[in-house]
Amino acid sequence: MKIAIDAMGGDYAPAEIVKGAVLGAREHGVGIILSGPEDVIRAELARHDTSGLDLTIDHTDEYLEEGENAGWAIRTKRKASIFQAVKQVLAGNAAAAVGVGPTGGVITAALMVLGTLEGLSRPVIGGAFLGFTPETLTIDLGGSVDCRPDQLLDFGIIGSVYATTWMGMENPTVALLSNGKEEGKGNEAVKAAYPLFQQSGLNFVGLVEGYDVALGKANVIICDGFTGNVMAKFCEGLGEVTSNWLAERLKGSLPDAEVERVVTDLKRATIPADTVGGGPLWGVNGVVCKAHGRSKAPEVSSTIGTAKRAVEIDLVGTFRRELAAIKQHITLPETETQ
Amino acid sequence: MKIAIDAMGGDYAPAEIVKGAVLGAREHGVGIILSGPEDVIRAELARHDTSGLDLTIDHTDEYLEEGENAGWAIRTKRKASIFQAVKQVLAGNAAAAVGVGPTGGVITAALMVLGTLEGLSRPVIGGAFLGFTPETLTIDLGGSVDCRPDQLLDFGIIGSVYATTWMGMENPTVALLSNGKEEGKGNEAVKAAYPLFQQSGLNFVGLVEGYDVALGKANVIICDGFTGNVMAKFCEGLGEVTSNWLAERLKGSLPDAEVERVVTDLKRATIPADTVGGGPLWGVNGVVCKAHGRSKAPEVSSTIGTAKRAVEIDLVGTFRRELAAIKQHITLPETETQ
Repeated sequence: MKIAIDAMGGDYAPAEIVKGAVLGAREHGVGIILSGPEDVIRAELARHDTSGLDLTIDHTDEYLEEGENAGWAIRTKRKASIFQAVKQVLAGNAAAAVGVGPTGGVITAALMVLGTLEGLSRPVIGGAFLGFTPETLTIDLGGSVDCRPDQLLDFGIIGSVYATTWMGMENPTVALLSNGKEEGKGNEAVKAAYPLFQQSGLNFVGLVEGYDVALGKANVIICDGFTGNVMAKFCEGLGEVTSNWLAERLKGSLPDAEVERVVTDLKRATIPADTVGGGPLWGVNGVVCKAHGRSKAPEVSSTIGTAKRAVEIDLVGTFRRELAAIKQHITLPETETQ
Repeated sequence: MKIAIDAMGGDYAPAEIVKGAVLGAREHGVGIILSGPEDVIRAELARHDTSGLDLTIDHTDEYLEEGENAGWAIRTKRKASIFQAVKQVLAGNAAAAVGVGPTGGVITAALMVLGTLEGLSRPVIGGAFLGFTPETLTIDLGGSVDCRPDQLLDFGIIGSVYATTWMGMENPTVALLSNGKEEGKGNEAVKAAYPLFQQSGLNFVGLVEGYDVALGKANVIICDGFTGNVMAKFCEGLGEVTSNWLAERLKGSLPDAEVERVVTDLKRATIPADTVGGGPLWGVNGVVCKAHGRSKAPEVSSTIGTAKRAVEIDLVGTFRRELAAIKQHITLPETETQ
């Protein structure tokens, strides 16, 4: 199996990316195609023992820079290294692509080159954003802001497949996030999505409230990307405010080092950026994995391992089959079928 | 000034409500009209020193019970004590009404008897739901689930008036909650509301994210009731999860009593039900104040004081005038003016 990686993305590119690619090739027994300027990559490779490894370079002089607007860069940098890496998947030279950053660039390249699975209009962003509840996936966290009822159902299918095939859950519970638990509560999209979930064959447990997200009352919690984004960012803000308050409150009562440990643990549990690490993009028509922009070589290698696993279990194929199978017997509301 | 109070609402009715009414009449120098069964109220009054107080009884045998569906009770109990109390305001016999619970009953009675201010279709639910940021009001927290852009503007006006006249803030900042800070971010309602806020003359500072709510980056933060409800309830859930985690984490490192104090402080700061206490209902065409269902006599008296203050500063008149003045020079989007 070969995996393509953008050597120029991320805070520590190219040094740590190339180092991580070499490490990943050895640890996971895969071939690696490195996209970026050949001379730069060759100079980095020369620092490592590459004997016996299948490493090739896909040369391009262009790459996205951190802070650059991905939407603008698309128009001017069609040969950017992240595009090159994803194109290797399209061409069948690589089974998966890995990008380390910037996030917008990885998502845009995946979307433009590979497209989304049938029925999805955008990649789906979700995950266990709260460290306290690692078995609760919230979807969507900002990919799709205004959602139709059938899009909410798509999120439910994707989350359920991911929970089962990737996380190993048996019959994960799926719930719609709403402003009350009683059937009939919700905004228009939630009310219209409710019967679709009932027909879906998913393990649908009805409506949950914001309270239940924090307590992990379901394995897959579905909301539009506006609500999910607000909630996940509120979580991060509240985690920070609480951590700062706690540091002040405990000062003098406990040794400084212990206060530091408690506060660090709390931050880790509540800051989504730290808990939603690298993983496959959901809804893209091919395996593209995003590593955190701050990744160093071990995390890069680990994301290569993630990409390999996604290929091996045919995650994308399972998404595709389940989306088609479930939606085949669903009656969409009038406005959606027109 | 006379204030009408439902003697039969709340967890400790009628004993603590009648006791609180007597206390409130003396502390705040107002007359009180008590709604409920005359014999029950008379028996409770007999336990207290009522000399020199202006206390009258508005007899009715009907009242709402805790847990009863307010929507159903409306149809069968049109003479319920909470309705009677609000009707005293409509009739001009009382300047304000006070209800202790259930919340749905107080809101429904206020809405059915007095109606909402022009342009508003439902009472507005908002407040400083996070104890860490007492100078940040979030509106709406669940009153209106699907919101038109002009409704979001109404919330901004009401929040701004409340921050100014009630909380004494000078030129409070007003922001729209969104999934990113950059202009152009947002769901359809937020995008359409943005230019209305720009034209409004409010101290509009643009978009804020969920993160900024927790950090109190604006004084008045506007969102639809679905998003606000999810966020406030998530806050409560996260506060509870964090408190439980902290109690476990600190056990043995600090004396039990000190752990208890830290955890209690944290819960108080994050549980909305505890921070959003009694206050005037926003958007109702008259002064109706809701006290927490668990209120005892001192809280009942304090809510009577709140009602008196709302009358004295003409809070409802100011809401009405500002809504009319600001909306007079706003160009509503096509879909709203049809």
